[in-house]
Amino acid sequence: MPYEIEMDKPKDECGVFGIYEPQNMGLAQLVYYGLYALQHRGQESAGIAVANGEGIDLIKDMGLVADVFDEEKLQNLKGNVAIGHVRYSTTGESSAINAQPFVYHYSRGMVAIAHNGNLTNAASWRKTLGESGSVFQTTSDTEVIINLMARYGQNTIEEAIMKCMIDIKGAYALLLMSGDKLIGVRDPNGLRPMCIGKIGEAYILASESCALDTVGARFIRNVKPGEIVIIDKNGLRSIQGVTAPQKALCAFELIYLARTDSVIDGQTVNLARQSLGRELAKQKKIAADMVVPVPDSGIAAAYGYAQESGIPMQEGLVKNRYVGRTFIKPTQELRDLGVRLKLNPIKTVVEGKKLILVDDSIVRGTTSKKLIKLLKEAGAQEVHMVISSPPISFPCYYGIDTSRQEELIASKFNTDEICKQIGADSLTYLKLEGLKTALGETGLCTACFDGSYPVEISDGATNAR
Amino acid sequence: MPYEIEMDKPKDECGVFGIYEPQNMGLAQLVYYGLYALQHRGQESAGIAVANGEGIDLIKDMGLVADVFDEEKLQNLKGNVAIGHVRYSTTGESSAINAQPFVYHYSRGMVAIAHNGNLTNAASWRKTLGESGSVFQTTSDTEVIINLMARYGQNTIEEAIMKCMIDIKGAYALLLMSGDKLIGVRDPNGLRPMCIGKIGEAYILASESCALDTVGARFIRNVKPGEIVIIDKNGLRSIQGVTAPQKALCAFELIYLARTDSVIDGQTVNLARQSLGRELAKQKKIAADMVVPVPDSGIAAAYGYAQESGIPMQEGLVKNRYVGRTFIKPTQELRDLGVRLKLNPIKTVVEGKKLILVDDSIVRGTTSKKLIKLLKEAGAQEVHMVISSPPISFPCYYGIDTSRQEELIASKFNTDEICKQIGADSLTYLKLEGLKTALGETGLCTACFDGSYPVEISDGATNAR
Amino acid sequence: MPYEIEMDKPKDECGVFGIYEPQNMGLAQLVYYGLYALQHRGQESAGIAVANGEGIDLIKDMGLVADVFDEEKLQNLKGNVAIGHVRYSTTGESSAINAQPFVYHYSRGMVAIAHNGNLTNAASWRKTLGESGSVFQTTSDTEVIINLMARYGQNTIEEAIMKCMIDIKGAYALLLMSGDKLIGVRDPNGLRPMCIGKIGEAYILASESCALDTVGARFIRNVKPGEIVIIDKNGLRSIQGVTAPQKALCAFELIYLARTDSVIDGQTVNLARQSLGRELAKQKKIAADMVVPVPDSGIAAAYGYAQESGIPMQEGLVKNRYVGRTFIKPTQELRDLGVRLKLNPIKTVVEGKKLILVDDSIVRGTTSKKLIKLLKEAGAQEVHMVISSPPISFPCYYGIDTSRQEELIASKFNTDEICKQIGADSLTYLKLEGLKTALGETGLCTACFDGSYPVEISDGATNAR
Amino acid sequence: MPYEIEMDKPKDECGVFGIYEPQNMGLAQLVYYGLYALQHRGQESAGIAVANGEGIDLIKDMGLVADVFDEEKLQNLKGNVAIGHVRYSTTGESSAINAQPFVYHYSRGMVAIAHNGNLTNAASWRKTLGESGSVFQTTSDTEVIINLMARYGQNTIEEAIMKCMIDIKGAYALLLMSGDKLIGVRDPNGLRPMCIGKIGEAYILASESCALDTVGARFIRNVKPGEIVIIDKNGLRSIQGVTAPQKALCAFELIYLARTDSVIDGQTVNLARQSLGRELAKQKKIAADMVVPVPDSGIAAAYGYAQESGIPMQEGLVKNRYVGRTFIKPTQELRDLGVRLKLNPIKTVVEGKKLILVDDSIVRGTTSKKLIKLLKEAGAQEVHMVISSPPISFPCYYGIDTSRQEELIASKFNTDEICKQIGADSLTYLKLEGLKTALGETGLCTACFDGSYPVEISDGATNAR
Repeated sequence: MPYEIEMDKPKDECGVFGIYEPQNMGLAQLVYYGLYALQHRGQESAGIAVANGEGIDLIKDMGLVADVFDEEKLQNLKGNVAIGHVRYSTTGESSAINAQPFVYHYSRGMVAIAHNGNLTNAASWRKTLGESGSVFQTTSDTEVIINLMARYGQNTIEEAIMKCMIDIKGAYALLLMSGDKLIGVRDPNGLRPMCIGKIGEAYILASESCALDTVGARFIRNVKPGEIVIIDKNGLRSIQGVTAPQKALCAFELIYLARTDSVIDGQTVNLARQSLGRELAKQKKIAADMVVPVPDSGIAAAYGYAQESGIPMQEGLVKNRYVGRTFIKPTQELRDLGVRLKLNPIKTVVEGKKLILVDDSIVRGTTSKKLIKLLKEAGAQEVHMVISSPPISFPCYYGIDTSRQEELIASKFNTDEICKQIGADSLTYLKLEGLKTALGETGLCTACFDGSYPVEISDGATNAR
Repeated sequence: MPYEIEMDKPKDECGVFGIYEPQNMGLAQLVYYGLYALQHRGQESAGIAVANGEGIDLIKDMGLVADVFDEEKLQNLKGNVAIGHVRYSTTGESSAINAQPFVYHYSRGMVAIAHNGNLTNAASWRKTLGESGSVFQTTSDTEVIINLMARYGQNTIEEAIMKCMIDIKGAYALLLMSGDKLIGVRDPNGLRPMCIGKIGEAYILASESCALDTVGARFIRNVKPGEIVIIDKNGLRSIQGVTAPQKALCAFELIYLARTDSVIDGQTVNLARQSLGRELAKQKKIAADMVVPVPDSGIAAAYGYAQESGIPMQEGLVKNRYVGRTFIKPTQELRDLGVRLKLNPIKTVVEGKKLILVDDSIVRGTTSKKLIKLLKEAGAQEVHMVISSPPISFPCYYGIDTSRQEELIASKFNTDEICKQIGADSLTYLKLEGLKTALGETGLCTACFDGSYPVEISDGATNAR
Repeated sequence: MPYEIEMDKPKDECGVFGIYEPQNMGLAQLVYYGLYALQHRGQESAGIAVANGEGIDLIKDMGLVADVFDEEKLQNLKGNVAIGHVRYSTTGESSAINAQPFVYHYSRGMVAIAHNGNLTNAASWRKTLGESGSVFQTTSDTEVIINLMARYGQNTIEEAIMKCMIDIKGAYALLLMSGDKLIGVRDPNGLRPMCIGKIGEAYILASESCALDTVGARFIRNVKPGEIVIIDKNGLRSIQGVTAPQKALCAFELIYLARTDSVIDGQTVNLARQSLGRELAKQKKIAADMVVPVPDSGIAAAYGYAQESGIPMQEGLVKNRYVGRTFIKPTQELRDLGVRLKLNPIKTVVEGKKLILVDDSIVRGTTSKKLIKLLKEAGAQEVHMVISSPPISFPCYYGIDTSRQEELIASKFNTDEICKQIGADSLTYLKLEGLKTALGETGLCTACFDGSYPVEISDGATNAR
Repeated sequence: MPYEIEMDKPKDECGVFGIYEPQNMGLAQLVYYGLYALQHRGQESAGIAVANGEGIDLIKDMGLVADVFDEEKLQNLKGNVAIGHVRYSTTGESSAINAQPFVYHYSRGMVAIAHNGNLTNAASWRKTLGESGSVFQTTSDTEVIINLMARYGQNTIEEAIMKCMIDIKGAYALLLMSGDKLIGVRDPNGLRPMCIGKIGEAYILASESCALDTVGARFIRNVKPGEIVIIDKNGLRSIQGVTAPQKALCAFELIYLARTDSVIDGQTVNLARQSLGRELAKQKKIAADMVVPVPDSGIAAAYGYAQESGIPMQEGLVKNRYVGRTFIKPTQELRDLGVRLKLNPIKTVVEGKKLILVDDSIVRGTTSKKLIKLLKEAGAQEVHMVISSPPISFPCYYGIDTSRQEELIASKFNTDEICKQIGADSLTYLKLEGLKTALGETGLCTACFDGSYPVEISDGATNAR
């Protein structure tokens, strides 16, 4: 069995990329490259669905984008509308049947759907729909959405989506494709991101702007919370579906999940992370020799911390760039190898030094403990851990896998206790106010820090998949 | 693209194998070996679903049984009930999404289904169900069945099946599995075969008895037309679902499709084919030196023909046992290679001889023409083709792919014309009366020969997949 | 680990196919199809080497011909001379490094070599060559041949081959290819077969004539024992290398190894096997109801036996045509499954009958015992085993893997004892005289039956690989 | 055909890792993890050879370490001595047959060999050896070494190696393994690195110290230029093989090739690269807003440059961490995608700014040009390119693939011309004196900068493979 080196990070659910492309520029290739740019949002499976004028062709499988597709497969995907999806890897329910996009036949024809997010009332809908005859092949929320839409088959697809948005609660950035149109939907709180781009006459909808950059498209604007965007031969049309009282973009998109070159709802991720680091440096002065980031997730915050504090930054930990997600499990004798395969301290850099180790978050605390041990064994005199987000004390129900509440170290222990457990000389979490100063007072979901959930959680809702 | 050497034969849809096994003898292994024995019924995909006590585990993929499963996968399939399926290969719609068994969540829990056959009113049900909100992931009839069953979720699974049998028309040998029971269903006309076996305390349901023999099980009896067989911890129970006025086992199961060592509804396939050959010899005397079968499908009939006619049988055509289904496509210069890769005449056997070439059927006539050409090039003086079935003039709507009507050579040309086209010195088809003498006056579907369809064909019904 | 169903048969080492093709008909494709036709001579690995005008391109790997090559690979193999090889599968030393052809750089340039056979003095040459600096990457005899040839680098390749033939002893059908010529060599006793064919202007050298038929080539003649055949732009030239006092074609090529449609040194394999069956029927009259062949190897002999004895032949055992070579190993409970997966008796055919079971040979007796048990369980009243060859009492040193002497059942037990062990009602081996009457008084190697080895066996020679 | 995004960097040939491990800690696993840490030195193929007490087991194939090995394969590699190898990818001659280690049978038994480097007189030895009967399966220098050693078969392996070192010229870090000993050899100039580590009682020899760290071993010392290190049951022994007048470690190991956490001949790679950056800042003052590294190769030098210059460093280019080496080739319309898939500018960071773009080297100039274009399109006001090494004007004959001389941009154009071609506002190469100040006045091979080759180049020597 493959062995995963768990890096103790929140995990995003998925990335989506869709295109309406009337010019035959190489539709499937554009989706392929777009998914490449979104690969960080999901490495478990990848898929592309293309409306070929008659039906919908679909290729999807477990694995990275580069594993799932080859030139022959892409060449066989021809058409003018396409959507693609990457999905993240969990150990549990991952299997080919859950790979997206899903393609369905319903009373109005064929439709393909790709979803990033998590519904909070899927379980009750699943029960209701099942009782009147719906069957499900997966445990995916997405299948609930499509069954609901099919119940509104008397309506146009846009109307069906609007009705659906009234029914479903939670986080969703959805792409849908019928034979001749591409539709994007963002949940009323805007929990998950989605943006619009343009390349020539072609429109693109994508989870993050880095995917637009990669295929050479111009960023047009973000999809608004609750907005339905319809793209077809008449161009782009917008409908406001359901409106929520507050916007609540997932703060972790800015803290950790998104790629640092993406711009999400007006904020450049890299600069946002630098701001978090600067706030951290303002919040806590530490007498140290150098700032060392945990690569890659802590780098931007470390830049900010170093600039604000004046303490020089150094590469004290080196990441093995060729390490995949899974390994042959080390024998009992070699157990400690795990983290060292991914990250190795540079002894001559850290030896005898007082370090400020910068990371973006602590979920269960397992990796932090090992890194501090490695650094101390390499001769570091002191290791002061600073975290560019507040303690994660509450589970996420909107599509981020932060482990179950009982596994969240910050839900059971206070900062001093955690500091002791991970073996740090000090531990500093960014305060919630600091986070808000850096990222904005409003418009963010910070439920995992403060338990203030912007969308109600139904009975039976689960903490992500 | 792989290149298939088309052998101009009817194609079966599928084979099914299910087991209720309370003794932990190696459930998944038994299904694996059972599917191996049914591999001739479908080489496109293979799958096994196992009820593990909590849910249903499913492994399925494109490919032969030996390709889809390995030891590790089988070991992970643990439980006391399992069903398996093999599916035949077409060029068109074959893809992993159509591989069976299908596993569904519905209001009464999880259910797995495996299906051999074809419904004649699936299209209208698909429309009706779709209009009230059902969605479909495939174009498979099996999805129609499960959606119908889900609509009867207020009933027990047995009741739901009974109601379903009233709704659906056509050919079906179905296996269903809920968490703790195995259910077999055969269509009211018994178009597709299914039999019951026992090994120790375990019950088995399978498409053909050769699968029982292979795993060392005893043949108990056939599932009766219209019968529902339920196997659970209380043993085997039988319900008569729907009764048809006449039994109508597909004659092609006996003529070509089934394995020669299977016993189907009381007839040993090998002996049935010998009888066909004998009837053919009675029908038409031919002055010839030897009887040459087209291996493997014509061998049993050739035995019968040789015995009855007194003309010695010889292996005049040798089959390459290592030829798979697909090849690298020959270049233009090597076009004729196709059949020769599979079948090669023995020159010294056929040279200067008058041959009676025995085959089971002619669909489009393409292979017969090539074989006769090969034999003549090898020196055969005369080639008299005899076919152990009547001309196929009508399409099948019950699950056998005999090509569309316009491709059936016998729907467009008479026997003399066909004889000329394939280059034979004479061509003899078995008369329908001869077939009935050999296989039984009643109880057979002979629709492809005489257009007398035992189950009505709805608008929109298609000639198999 | 894959599990092989051992069928208790001698195993051939390899098949070779070479072509000199100046017309660009699709060189690599012709070799590919030729190897397909020789696949029965080796299923472990396959390879093709093509002289591209500058160097030699080589593709080889473990697996069947269809597994190793695809269209893209074949298209990249361009040139006018090519040789190919298939190798049989053993459990022990099989690995990619032993796959042939081998391609070498030596002082005269590049050369490719493909070999069917076994040397009897390879070990001593290996020692001698090693002492003066040769290194070997494999344990293959073929590497000894090429190292010897390299020592004669002052000579032309033809001269080097002639010198080599003086040095090496044993069985070899060799193909060599330099940049612009194709060379075939057959050992002085002609132990392994090789024939010459022509298609248009192209010459072909192949282990068996069935490969010529398959690609549409005309059979020209056999390569003579001890002959070196050189084909280049000047056409075909022949040199007599070394002459042995007697020809000694391996009798097992005719009895079992070759494909039944091949013609080997003037004998059609199928007819030769029928003759063996006829001799057997003359040798021993048995009161029985039917003749049942063990498919596929016993079929031709069974034809002969049935014709001579007047007892009708029947298909009493059915072979699963989809069984590959390896399986998932059955659990302890399912141990007996092995043979039944491959061969299943037809109960209604054999029930209550006295059978004459015809097979070509018994090596260790394991399969015969299981088949007789299966037939008796299916109701056979008596099973009389008849074998169309004498007992195998001596190991082969010329390239056929008949197991080590201590494993040969006939080297330890007499016919009565073997009969008892396999559970037959009687056991009849063809007498050596009968074999000679059928196949020819002279010109055959019968060492495995009578210990009369035509080529001396050096110390250290091993019974095949 | 896969499409490689060429990053215009020198390519190393290989990495080696060997272990003598008497304690059964999991020998093959240690080699596996060690090769993982050396994966940056070669991504084309990977292999491990283990002396199992009787012979040598070998597993090798094309692909990354994680692709070539799985748990079952590693478990089958048991013994107390092992060597492993990773090889870099070229488009031309890469094929499985060139994967190392090589395992040979010679007069003294079996020996395995793994080689990093390139000989300068291999061609003439190949000719000499060939003339006296050696054959070669590859074009690899390593086969020359083993054939030479075999010619000294009258000597012990240590003596044979010593004689060999007199014969061969060039760069080599060699690991050899006989049944019971591990031997490491470094060329007299020490062109390629090798170090010694210890874990428990086990000794390790590896190309770089990062491999020691990864498996938890202690760094003992470097293997000295010209040294032969023998490790067996008596511990570690050292022999001085051949002594060169000067040490000449390849400067590019420090500049680019080695992992930044390795210590090579006393220098920590990360710190060495920072020094190069500092020298560069001293050499040339540039009025700019920020220092932007080309990730990952320019990061360490950028740190140094930023510290010395006082200009702040920023992540202006983001690397896609999921990009593998090969892609589906973009269509004509999407040609420009190549570099953008790997590196994307952060618009909001670089917009309107004057940048100092730091990279380690320019080989052909292709990537630099594209990066500068991307940065300018993203709004950068000025891009000043600074390179932490002198212009590469001469080819390498010692194992680094820097392209052929005519492809080296600096061999044809002066700095101003190159600056113009890549579209930079200024271009600064580090001066050779600066490099020496940073890395040491002596002991380095700087031939690619100044043409001063420490080992003579024979006729026929080629610029790496």
